[in-house]
Order: sequence, then C-alpha cells, then structure tokens
Amino acid sequence: MLDAAEQGLTLTDRAYERQLRTLRPALLKAHFALQATGRQLLVIVSGSDGAGKGELVHRLNEWLDPRGVTTSAFWDYSDEEAERPHFYRFWRAMPGAGKIGIFFGSWYTRPIIDRVAKLRRKRDFVPELDRIVAFERMLADGGIHVLKLWMHLSKPAQRQRLKELAKAGRLGPDDRKHFKQYDRFRDVSEQALEHTHHPQAPWHAIDATDRRHREVAVAKLVVAALESAVGEAAAVQQARATTKGPRARGTKAKPAPTASTARTWVPGPSLLDQVDLTQRLTVSQYERELPQLQERLSRLAWRARDAKVPTILAFEGWDAAGKGSAIRRVTQALDPRLYRVVGIAAPSDEERAQHYLWRFWRHIPRDGRITIFDRTWYGRVLVERVEGFAPVSDWDRAYFEIDAFERQLVDHGAALGKFWIHISPDEQLKRFKERQRVAWKQHKITDEDWRNRKKLPAYKAAVDEMLARNSPSEAPFTVVAGNDKRFARVQILRTIVERLERALEAKADAAS
Amino acid sequence: MLDAAEQGLTLTDRAYERQLRTLRPALLKAHFALQATGRQLLVIVSGSDGAGKGELVHRLNEWLDPRGVTTSAFWDYSDEEAERPHFYRFWRAMPGAGKIGIFFGSWYTRPIIDRVAKLRRKRDFVPELDRIVAFERMLADGGIHVLKLWMHLSKPAQRQRLKELAKAGRLGPDDRKHFKQYDRFRDVSEQALEHTHHPQAPWHAIDATDRRHREVAVAKLVVAALESAVGEAAAVQQARATTKGPRARGTKAKPAPTASTARTWVPGPSLLDQVDLTQRLTVSQYERELPQLQERLSRLAWRARDAKVPTILAFEGWDAAGKGSAIRRVTQALDPRLYRVVGIAAPSDEERAQHYLWRFWRHIPRDGRITIFDRTWYGRVLVERVEGFAPVSDWDRAYFEIDAFERQLVDHGAALGKFWIHISPDEQLKRFKERQRVAWKQHKITDEDWRNRKKLPAYKAAVDEMLARNSPSEAPFTVVAGNDKRFARVQILRTIVERLERALEAKADAAS
Repeated sequence: MLDAAEQGLTLTDRAYERQLRTLRPALLKAHFALQATGRQLLVIVSGSDGAGKGELVHRLNEWLDPRGVTTSAFWDYSDEEAERPHFYRFWRAMPGAGKIGIFFGSWYTRPIIDRVAKLRRKRDFVPELDRIVAFERMLADGGIHVLKLWMHLSKPAQRQRLKELAKAGRLGPDDRKHFKQYDRFRDVSEQALEHTHHPQAPWHAIDATDRRHREVAVAKLVVAALESAVGEAAAVQQARATTKGPRARGTKAKPAPTASTARTWVPGPSLLDQVDLTQRLTVSQYERELPQLQERLSRLAWRARDAKVPTILAFEGWDAAGKGSAIRRVTQALDPRLYRVVGIAAPSDEERAQHYLWRFWRHIPRDGRITIFDRTWYGRVLVERVEGFAPVSDWDRAYFEIDAFERQLVDHGAALGKFWIHISPDEQLKRFKERQRVAWKQHKITDEDWRNRKKLPAYKAAVDEMLARNSPSEAPFTVVAGNDKRFARVQILRTIVERLERALEAKADAAS
Repeated sequence: MLDAAEQGLTLTDRAYERQLRTLRPALLKAHFALQATGRQLLVIVSGSDGAGKGELVHRLNEWLDPRGVTTSAFWDYSDEEAERPHFYRFWRAMPGAGKIGIFFGSWYTRPIIDRVAKLRRKRDFVPELDRIVAFERMLADGGIHVLKLWMHLSKPAQRQRLKELAKAGRLGPDDRKHFKQYDRFRDVSEQALEHTHHPQAPWHAIDATDRRHREVAVAKLVVAALESAVGEAAAVQQARATTKGPRARGTKAKPAPTASTARTWVPGPSLLDQVDLTQRLTVSQYERELPQLQERLSRLAWRARDAKVPTILAFEGWDAAGKGSAIRRVTQALDPRLYRVVGIAAPSDEERAQHYLWRFWRHIPRDGRITIFDRTWYGRVLVERVEGFAPVSDWDRAYFEIDAFERQLVDHGAALGKFWIHISPDEQLKRFKERQRVAWKQHKITDEDWRNRKKLPAYKAAVDEMLARNSPSEAPFTVVAGNDKRFARVQILRTIVERLERALEAKADAAS
C-alpha cells in the first residue's frame, strides 16, 4: 500500500493556487452540508515523522469552518486516561452531531509504536487490529464517517527531511533514533494499514514529500468524505421515508424487507420462564448472610482499589423489580469515595449528539473505582426496541456492539456484573398497588409504568433475546429471582463478590 | 462555634423512629419541589475523623430520591485536577438544575489539613478563606444553595471512637496520628468555620457522638435547606412577575426600583472613543514582524509546556472585527498538541442546567496547555445584557464574578490574554458588504449581524463598562485597533508573547 505513495508527486505553486480556488469553497460548502445532516466526520492524521502532519492540521483548521471543527492530539496520557480502557480517550474527544473531529494521532499510534519497539508481541498485534476494525465499523454504522490519512515519506525523502530539520535547529531528540528504525516502522505500518483497510474506513496513503501535493490531495479527500457522509444521510432518510411513508398514509403497499428490517435471530425457549421465582430466604437467613456478604464486599472493594481493578455494575429489570433497593444494599457496603451511581434516564442534548454508547463511556470508572449503572446500555435493545425509538437495523446491530464494548471493559481487567432482576407480572401488580398506597412511595409509580406493563409480551421477547445474545462467558448476565427481595439482594451481592474475587485473581496472575 | 456541638445530645431508638416517620416523607417532598424549580442544593459533609460522615452520606442517599442526587468524594487528586486551579474539581462535580450534590470533602478540606500540618502559612490562610466566602456567595447568587455541615466530636468522644475502631480492627493508619493533633485540628477548624460563617452559607456544627441524634439533626437541616431553596425560587419568580407583569399588560404602573434594577455604576468617558483606529502596518513591516513574533510564541509555548504554565486567551470584538483570522495567526505558531480553540455559541442543555461560569471552567487547560476562547464569559455582560437574556441583577453582579474567576486563573500561574478587537462602524459596514459579495465568506454574515449592528449604541455602552470594570492590573484587557488587520494581528501576538514571558518569569521566581 505504501509503494503507491512513493512516486514523488509534486505540484507547482500555480497549480496549487488554481486547485485551491475551487477546493476551498467546495470544502466549506460540504462542511455546511454536513452540519445540516447531524452526521460526524473523523479525520485521522497519521504517518511518518516529519511528513508535515502538524502543518496539515493547521491547514484543515484554516480551510474549514472553525466553529465546526475540534482538533484533538493524542499524545501523552493523563492518569485519568491511562487508567481506563484504551478507547476511552477517543470517545472523550468524539465530535458531536454535524461536527468534524481532526484526530492528530489515533487508536493506531500506540499499537504501531509499541510493535515497532517490540513492546507488543506479534501474536497480540493482529487481534488488536481486528478490534480496531470492529470499532471503526461500529462508528460507521452509527453515522460517524472515518477518513484515515497516512502521510508517507519514502526513506530518501525522510533522510532529506531530517537534514533540513537539523539545519534549522529543529531536530527533536527522538528523530534520529526513529530514522534508524525506518524499515521496521515501514513494515509494521504497512501491515497495520493493510489489515485495517476495509470498505467502511479505507486507508488513504499520501505521498507527503511535497507540501503542495499533499495538501491538495487531502483537501480533495476531505471534500469527498464530506459529500459521501451527506449522501449517506440523504439515502438513509429516503429509505426510511419509503418504508414508513406509505403505511402512515394508509395505503396497503407493504414495504419490501430491506437490510433494516430483515433479522436473522430465531428465538429459542424463554429463559425468563425458567427462572424459579419461588426461591426465598427467611428473615434469619437474610440477616445472617447479607451482613457477611457486605463485609466481604467492603474488604474486596478496598483490595480492588489497591490492585487498580475497576468495577462496573449494570442493573436492569422490570419496573418495581427492586433495582433501587438492591443497589442500596450494595452501596451500603462501599466507602462513598470508591463508587458512583449513574442513573440513566433520557439523554441530554450533548448525549443525543453522539453515538449511543458515548454516554456510558463518559462514566466508565478509573482503575480501582466502581460505577453502578441504574439502567444501562441495554436500553438500546429494550426500551428503544420496544418503543420504536431506534430503527430495527440499529438495535439489531447493538447486540454485537454491546458485546464488543463489554469485552473492552473485561480485557482491561474490570470486574463486570450485569443483572436482570426478574419478577412475575402478579408480583409487579402487587408492588405497583403498594406504591400507590404508601405516601412516600407514590413518586415511584407513574402512568408510564402502567403503559409499559401493557407491553409486557414485547418487553419479554426483548429481554429473552438480550439474555440469549449478550451473555458470553466473559461477561455473563445474572438473572435474579426477584419475587423475594431478600433472596434477590443476597444473590446480587454474592455475584458481585465472586466477580470481584475473580478479577483480583486474574490481575494477580497477570502480574506474577 | 464548636462548643455548642459538645453537649452530648442523644436520641432514643424510639424517638429516632418517630422523627423519621415524618422526616423521610418531608425530605422526599422537598426534594421533588426542588426538582421543579431547577435550583441546586449542595450539601457539604465535613468534620472530625470518625464522626460517621460516610455513614451519613449513605443515609442521605437512602432518604432522598437517588435519581436526583450525585455524591462526590474529594479525595486524592487526579493529575488532570491537580494541574488546574483549585476550584476546577468542584466545578466539575457541580450538580445540575434541580439536583442535590453531596460533597464528601470540599474546598475546606485541603486548606484546613494543610494548615494543621503547617504546610500553609498563617498569613495565607485568611485570604484563602476569604476567597472561599466569595466563591460561596457567587454560588448562592447563582441559585445554588450551599448547606455546610460540620460533624463534630469532642475530644473524649473522639478518644472513645478510636477505641471502638481499634477493637473492630478498623483503625486507619493515620487515625492515631490525627488524634495526637486533635487540639490543633480543632483550633484551625474553629477559625475556618468562624471566618466562613456568612449569611449566604452559614455553618451548622452538629454533635456527632450519637448516630441517631446526628442523623435526625442533618435530616432536619436538609429539609429546611430544600424548603428555603424552593422559597427563594418562588420569591424571585414573583418579583420578576410584579416588575415585568404590569408593563407587559400595558398599564402605566411603574415598578419601584428593586435590588435587581438599581445600579451603582456611573459611566466615565468612553475608552473605545480613545482608540486610535488609524494605526496601520505596511505589508513589509507586517511580513517582517509577524513571523518573528510567531517564532517567539512557538518557542515560548514549548517552554510553558515544560514549566507547566497554562495559557488562557479570550477573544471578544465587534462582528467582523477579525477574531477568527487573528486566532489563526496565533494557532499557526502553535503545535496542535498544545492548544485547543473553544468556540462559544448557544449553551447546550447540560450547560444551561449549570451556573453560567461552568461552561468555561470545563475548558480550562491543564498546566502547560493553551485554551483559546473564541467569544467568552464576557457574553454575560455583552450579549446577555444588551439582549435582556439575563436580568439586570445577574449581569451587574457578573463584573465581580468574572473578576474573581480570572484572579483564580492568574493566582494559579496562568498566562491570561484578553482581547477586545475594535473596529469603526464604517469599517464594519465595509466588511459586512464584502462578506455578502465573496462566495466563501457568505456563511460568515447573517441577519443577526445586521440586527446587532442596529443595537450598536447599547453594545458600545456595555463594552465600555466591561473595559472599565474588568481590566485589573493582574488581568488587563487589551483593546486592539482592528481597522487594519495587519496591525491588529501583530498587536495581539506581541501581547501574548509578553504575557507568556511574564508568567514564565513569575513561575521561575516562585521556584527559586
């Protein structure tokens, strides 16, 4: 792939100026069109040392509407970034709806540099590149266009560049050292580029020797990327209009099954139906077991803090299943300095302007801390599916996206607990009525709860599919028998204790 | 103040239960009322070691609506927090509209602990407490109610508590050491409490010996604080209705001047009128001076990075004054890894749910980095004043609030540059017309620009007042003569270079 970028292409000053006269208005026009669609463009600027990446970033900022561009440099890690899964810092810098994000450095930087320096083993490199491809596909599916630029210098061009820098007294301390590794860097980069060159985010290797050539080449690519993002947005809009429009207008034309409605999932027997909801604990059992488990959890939380193991607890369940009171039994055991409870309700407009996973990434805890989600990313395949807030294609894809997301947490060493608190419809009705009766519980019951109850079969199908599809052995769901609150709380605490013990053991194993 | 909290008050189990039966519904009711007003309550939980602060935080989370509470523990600093002015971490944790924030630890923690350990000099302690009072007043004025709780243990109670902890094997490593300093800790705390006990955020010292007593006392205070916050919101609403209502309905009743409309500012001669707008640079002067200044800035930015000096640049000016192109001349000189440009437009809903300064705090750079604000916090006294988006009392107070905000930046060691780019009305008209003519400039001119132009006298009065009131010697405004763009850009770059040099010298002096 890099050979093609070693042809020594140049551009005269006059040709450069002439091209820019049409390219600059085209860039602005396409940028404004993007802003109207609410889609996002990510421009990844990577490549050789001395290939003018910094200058290029300046130029893009000059040519585009500065109010719609944010530039992020991924350079040294802050401890808040280093103590979270690798993709956290990129999520944090993700541009919002209608914006362009210029990433100076990217998720490729560290894998490539570590591989060049042999800090990363060969057999870990390809799986890491695979994860990157999956991540980029997810962004593309979510309406985030990724334009990947590799600014390349041939070996002679690189040598020449170093001479110029040395003459100007601007040679960085590592520049010579890096040049000695030119061949290895080129090999590793070539491998990375080829492995991650896929239709949803292809690489563009650009001969960066001549400033004018590289700038014009990039400007053309950015215009094309913007236009393509705008075109995709229009196509999606049109597809939705033709599948929904006729029905809404009462005609009988049945839409042909498109990619967005054809689903391959075949439901099996209901997992929920198999839960033994008669399981109970007596008061005396509960009063013996709960404090013991809380005591263990308390000690484990401190050990996790010292061992830098983060914990993520995800609570889902039927309305009135007892999520809130179960969470309180967990937090009672925790020092308030160690945990945070994040309640997930309607997204803010900053959250709505982002990929749906963004609002969860922003709350991922630092190493050694605990985040408890009261409702979670599973909303995508529960409420958004059942209420039709997301199109079929979006929530159907989410099973895979959530799987990848949770794998990143677990790979980072997190203890992950996922709970579905199950109760029977009768038990739910009993609790709804009690909430209406007791003065200080009335705020917990709203018309929406009654409306949701009517959609119980649709929700049950969604929960069953979620439990079947999103319970891999590395990140299993715990279905909690919730009719007896005492039993449920003890089951939850015991699960958390076990997960934390396992994560601590894994961390100790890795260290030894 | 602490004597009053050493009376050994206790509560029987029965009395505790009886009180809670009315207090718990009262807490919830008041909390829901708060949510309806959009005001905020901050509960600061501080006091002696072993006074049950953690337990109390748990209890508050249990009693209140958990969806409306966030608990923040201010414990060890992340590097992202340590490398910013002291109040940054508290701004970051500020609850949004209608929410309760429980702060476990606060802006008092470090000053008191450092003073006890004699890491802070006596003569710096009182000014620091004064800054805290000013900060709390600002929060109160912005509709954020601050409830300050000091959980106190007398010396015998503290000794008893230590014995219990030791018996339960739960004695922390520093607990004994802290007890040896009991008297000094009490003296320093007493001084801090008395100095920061002010009408807008008084202290409540609570005898924390008996769990039941302290919990009931706190519950009562929280109910009272919530009710008072709700009452204030209603009073403000009513006051606005009575001053605005009659006029809107066309009656002639003139509102009596209230605190919100009476202003004490007497305008002096216009500073803007004194700007010599004929100042120009020839092309050859410009082409000699600009690159020299950019070269100096480039080196200084790297030195500032190494010396951990942050830079904040604030750009304001008339529409079409050339803010954007001036900013580009600055960023051309900077490595993209060192700076970030933040364009300030309409606030997001997360920003609207907060104090108006919050949205600027969230972008304050880490030490060694640069943030460039394209429009700034001065919007409060410019557009919000002229367009009537903020009531008089709010923007009139903002001159002082902005002053305090900028002092915090400068005290932290930041290089601060503040620019008003001035152009004559004729020059503005010329540029507006040019923007309409040139294809790729048309997006820069909107109907709003023409509307603003009609309000020129009102804006001019606002700018003049801002320049007169917000230009202290530590954080002066630079009024840029902008009719000649070359002159303006060089003036701006020269000012930034000087500010950075001064900040670097100050840092070196402090270190030596």
